[in-house]
Formats: sequence, C-alpha cells, structure tokens
Amino acid sequence: MSMSNDVISLFSTSEAGFRRLPSPDGATPFIEVDGPRLDRNIKRMQAIADDAGVGLRPHIKTHKSIEIARRQIGAGAVGLTASKASEAEVFVRAGFKDVLMAYPVIRAEAVGQLLATAKAQDAGVSFIAADLSGVRALHDAAIAARMRLPVFVKVDVGLGRIGVKPESAMALQMAQEIAGADGLRLAGLLSHAGHSYGADRPETIEAIAMAEDRTLEALRQRLESAGIADLQISTGSTPTALGAPIFPATNEVRPGNYAFLDLTALRLKIASADDIALSVVATVIAANEAHAIIDAGSKMLSSDHGPHGTGGGDYGCAVGLDANGVASAFSVARLSEEHGFLALEGRSLPVGSRVRIFPNHSCAVVALSDSFVMRDGDGGFRTLPIDARGKLT
Amino acid sequence: MSMSNDVISLFSTSEAGFRRLPSPDGATPFIEVDGPRLDRNIKRMQAIADDAGVGLRPHIKTHKSIEIARRQIGAGAVGLTASKASEAEVFVRAGFKDVLMAYPVIRAEAVGQLLATAKAQDAGVSFIAADLSGVRALHDAAIAARMRLPVFVKVDVGLGRIGVKPESAMALQMAQEIAGADGLRLAGLLSHAGHSYGADRPETIEAIAMAEDRTLEALRQRLESAGIADLQISTGSTPTALGAPIFPATNEVRPGNYAFLDLTALRLKIASADDIALSVVATVIAANEAHAIIDAGSKMLSSDHGPHGTGGGDYGCAVGLDANGVASAFSVARLSEEHGFLALEGRSLPVGSRVRIFPNHSCAVVALSDSFVMRDGDGGFRTLPIDARGKLT
Repeated sequence: MSMSNDVISLFSTSEAGFRRLPSPDGATPFIEVDGPRLDRNIKRMQAIADDAGVGLRPHIKTHKSIEIARRQIGAGAVGLTASKASEAEVFVRAGFKDVLMAYPVIRAEAVGQLLATAKAQDAGVSFIAADLSGVRALHDAAIAARMRLPVFVKVDVGLGRIGVKPESAMALQMAQEIAGADGLRLAGLLSHAGHSYGADRPETIEAIAMAEDRTLEALRQRLESAGIADLQISTGSTPTALGAPIFPATNEVRPGNYAFLDLTALRLKIASADDIALSVVATVIAANEAHAIIDAGSKMLSSDHGPHGTGGGDYGCAVGLDANGVASAFSVARLSEEHGFLALEGRSLPVGSRVRIFPNHSCAVVALSDSFVMRDGDGGFRTLPIDARGKLT
Repeated sequence: MSMSNDVISLFSTSEAGFRRLPSPDGATPFIEVDGPRLDRNIKRMQAIADDAGVGLRPHIKTHKSIEIARRQIGAGAVGLTASKASEAEVFVRAGFKDVLMAYPVIRAEAVGQLLATAKAQDAGVSFIAADLSGVRALHDAAIAARMRLPVFVKVDVGLGRIGVKPESAMALQMAQEIAGADGLRLAGLLSHAGHSYGADRPETIEAIAMAEDRTLEALRQRLESAGIADLQISTGSTPTALGAPIFPATNEVRPGNYAFLDLTALRLKIASADDIALSVVATVIAANEAHAIIDAGSKMLSSDHGPHGTGGGDYGCAVGLDANGVASAFSVARLSEEHGFLALEGRSLPVGSRVRIFPNHSCAVVALSDSFVMRDGDGGFRTLPIDARGKLT
C-alpha cells in the first residue's frame, strides 16, 4: 500500500507542511524534533494514562535521548522501558531510578554491568522472562549482584514473537518458578501487542487491545486461583494506547513511538499530520525528468516501511517549495544509500532548496544518527545527542 | 523474489556455513568480518583492475573503516572514493593522500572543512559536478581554499539518479565550464551504473557495463572534437566490476561492496557463499512454533532487501546448529527493531545457541554499528571502529 494522495495532501495544507527549514549550520541532512509537538504528544499520552488511572512507562527505543526521557518523567511517567541491557544502562547511568528492560535475558553475564550500575546509582531495574532459561539467567544474575529483581512473565498476546502462551501450563509454571526463585520477585504479566501495527482499520486496533486485556486478566485470575496474587499487568504499544481505550485489567502502559509519531501512525489514524514531531531536513542536490534527488538516503531514513515489516510501498513524504514558493508534497519513491528519489510527477523542486521529510518509522531513523536538532517553539534550537544509539547488546 | 532454496542450501554445505561462532565477550549481536575472505576479495578485485590496466579506487561507504582502506591501498588501490564530505574527511585526516568525493557539491561551505584538512595533510581530493550550480560551488570552494581541484563531469548512464545525459549539449557545456573555471581542473567523466543491481541475469550486467563504456567513450570523443582532451573515464559498481569485463575506454573503477559482498552479490551470481566476508553473529533468545527469535533486528541488520531498492522478500540468511549439532540455514523472514524472526519450517534451534547471518546488503549493516570484529585466519580477533559511521553530511 502506497501512502494515498489524500494523506500526502494533508502535508501541503496543514501546519505540518513546511516550516523553519533553514538548518543550524547549513549542513544537511539532519533530524529535527519539534519541541512543542513533542511536549504535546507527551502530555497527551500522560493524560490518557492519568485518566485511566494507570502508570505510563515510555519505551525510550524511539528517541534514545536522555533529555526527552527527562521530559517524559517530568510530565508524570512512572519510569522508563528499554530493550537491550546496554541501552537500559545509558538511562540508569544518567540517573533514572526505575527502568524496565523489556527484553529476554538468557545469559546472566548480559546484565552484570547493568546491575552494577543500578546498584551504584541506587536505581531499580526490572526484567521480563519468556521461558525457564530466562528465569535461571535472572536468578543467577540476581545472586551474583546480591539484588532482588522484579520479573514479569512475558505473555504472547498474538504478535507471535516472544512469550508464553496465555492459556498454557507453562504460563503458570513460569510464574511459580519466578515467585519461588531466590533473588527474584514476581512482578506481574507483560505483553506487547505489536500486531496492532498491521491493523487495516481502527476497529481492529480496539479489538486487539480488548483481547489483550481480557487475555491477561484471565491469566491473572488463573494464577490467583493457584495462589499467586498481586500481579501487575503491563501492556503497551502506541497503536493500542492511542487507538483504543485503556481496558480495566491494565495497570501500566509502555508505548514508545507516541513521542514522535510518523507516517505509520497517520496510516493507522492514531495521529494527524500536525502531531508528527520528528522529521528529516534534507537538500535537493539534483533533479531529472522523473525525480528530485535529495541528500538523504537509506543511511539517513532507513529502508523501513513501518514497524514489524508493516506499511506502504515508499519511504516517506517530503514537503518542499517549488520555484514559485508554493508548498507541495512528494513521495520518497526510492532510496540509495545516500540519495533519496522524490517523485516529481510534473512538478519541480529547485536544486539547493530544502525539504522536510516525514518518515515511515521514526524509531528506525533515530537508530542511524548520532544527534538531532531540538527546535523550540520560538525557533531556537540545540543539537542534542542520541545518547543510546548503537547500544545493540 | 525470496532467496531461493538452492541459494540457502549453499550455506549449509559450504565453508561459509558455520564457523567460529563464540563471540569475544559473549555479547551479541555484532558484525564479524572474516579477514582472509576480505583479503581474498581485495586481491581478486585488484587483480582484475591490474589485468585490465586500470586503476582501482575503492568506495569506502561499504566498510567506513580506516584499517580496511589501508588494506585496499596496500594491495595496490590508487586512492579512495567516498560519498559525503564528512565521510571523505575521516580518511583524509587518517592520512590517505588521494580521495575522490563522488557526491555532488552544491554549497561551497559544505567542503570547506574537507579542503582545510586536505591542505593540512598535503592530500589530494577530487570531486564531481552534476550541473552548473555544482561547478560554481566547487569554483567558490577552490578560490576560498586557494587550491586547484580536479573535477569530473558526472554522467548518468542509466540509473536515472544524478548526472548529465551523455548525449546532451549540457555535457559539453559542463566540461567547458569546469575547464574554464579558476581553481578547477577538468579531470574526466565519471559514472555509476547502479542499475546493474537490478539485473535479472548475468548477461544483463555485461550489457550494462558495455553500454556504459561505449557511452562514455562516445562522449569523450565528442568532447575531444570540441578541443577538450586528456579526459579520464571513471566507472564503477561491484556488479559490473565482477560480473563483466572491464571495457577498453575505462581508466579507473570504483567498486565498494566487493570487499564484503552479501546475498545481493550471490543473487547476481557475482560471488559464491564462501566469498561473503561480512556476517552478523546473533543469539537465539526464544522460539515458538513458527520462528526462532534472535537478538538482531532492523536496528542491527537494516531493513534493506538490496541496494537501490533491489532484492528479495526477506532480510538475510541465518545459519545455525540444531540440538543434534547439525547445521541448517534459515530465512530471516521478518524483523522488529531488536528481534529477527527465523523461519523454522519444522526444524529447531535451541534457545541460547548462536547463528551467523549473511545480510542482503552489507553496506547498510555497517551504517548501524559503531564497531566490528575482525577475525583473522588463525581465529584471533580484534574489535575495530567503524570510523566513518554516522558521517551523513
């Protein structure tokens, strides 16, 4: 599915279309984060969590930025979520006191450094386990570090990636093993409904979120019948958090992408063009009959169509001004490593002019750059590091 | 097009299949470069260039590594090729004396720092121009730096990306403008036949290379008739350099990917499985009925199917050992940001076991990591930086 003309036209007419394109030092390409939109997105999600009476634990994989994580905590988030141990450690080292590593640990050594840092910083770190080897690894790590670690049972609610099947005997056994292991504390049940990114219409997102909630509640009740009580339920994806109510069994949500959003969020109808806080500023370096060529390629924008392999047939939407100063939106039709191909379709873009690109998947863009430009509402800006970029282990 | 079973089966039976999987410190995922294969690839391409009597100027975008560039120069390469100015500068600063920036310059300021570094290092840097604004920008940069810069006319030989049309009046005008500009020296004609990556059979690659050579030779003769002599012809892509003879008009070739190769080279039949020098080592962290899940996702492997949007329907080929120690090859069927999905198709992979992944596009993988492991023939290894990673401007 290509981004439809309806969606592309949004960018030419909306506030999102074309603003503030001159770059700090003239060099392009770079990531620009719109500070006021970012703050609005953060507040909006916090209000959703507050209204539902649940905790918000943002996933920092989207921005990998200490400053943005501080804004999220400042707005009321209860803690952070990270993927890899080295990624979590960046935030623990920076002083965050409550970080969930929502990624399976199967070797105790993999979290040794993270736990040492957490101890030194007096920070709490929590974990997930998806199978018995994960419980053993976390037990070994806890004993070695002389710490007591909260552990969630990871439940597969339909993505088909990681976790126990909710109706399985293993779900109960996992909970029992964690509860009975020295050094561990059973914290609850955790899921990620990433299959919501594949939803073809809003009702599907709501159905997925409702099923997730009911599935986890049924498992919680089954475990309670077996004498395992006080379990927290942690869910979270941006599509379900923005595209559905927060259902009653949930205690905590862990969306990540909501801070920036992107064309995928637009496709899912959980955001408008004016909500997208991350864009890439690039320069037109050449033009031929079919395409304007820009200095941002797959090494800047990524080749992602959307999360989990979802999404359209192109690589983003670029907004630029033609020779008469009229704003127009262009499909990023192809990418080489350092070049993007904007489909001109009879229009023109002057060589040397700037374009703003809204990407398919903001999280993938952030993984490629060392820094981004944070643009404040008054037009001022600062260049900030992407602190946890490259933390892949 | 998915990687065919024939191709996947190559990995289970060949030397490429499964070797040396324990990682330096137990942490995964990481990029491993096979030193002996790398050296063999470097020697092979050098021999091709030497036999044809042309210069080899490798594109460093593939590895972004000072050490690997040194090996290429050590084997006989006449200089290096880079894309962006900041990328070229890394190599000039490291002491390389002859670097071509094969990317359009449209703002003189964009190369100011590169030229200052080149002057300080007594290094030669050369450039391309794709339109008249490029000639002006390079002229301004040369005057500001008080240097004389060699400039190639970039010719579009069919990729449809950047360059003058070879039969156009503009091709002649560009050559005249460069030749007549203070501070510039017209070095020759330069092309990149990147459309060879889309070839569906070997004969297509050869036809593209032959057409490129004839096109550039015809333009050279046309310019010579207009009094512009002594033009060098620089071509270069890995498919044409490995998949076709070097045709007579060419003076210099600029392949990049040949140092590592990947599944795209295999698909194009310009490499065998045993030639692929870059792989990613990852760990199986979970398994369900359909997939083994590994700790390398799109943030490690990229979402590239192949260069310039070419390629198959999956994300690489992983080789692992089942519980009985039997090697088998698995399609990397899907990616999340930090997870890869290996299609089990009735086979199994133990949680905790390692796999080696051969990617679709080595250059895209290198753009995501800060370092790689160089493995020598004796099994020893060193971790080396990816020196020019993130140099996107």
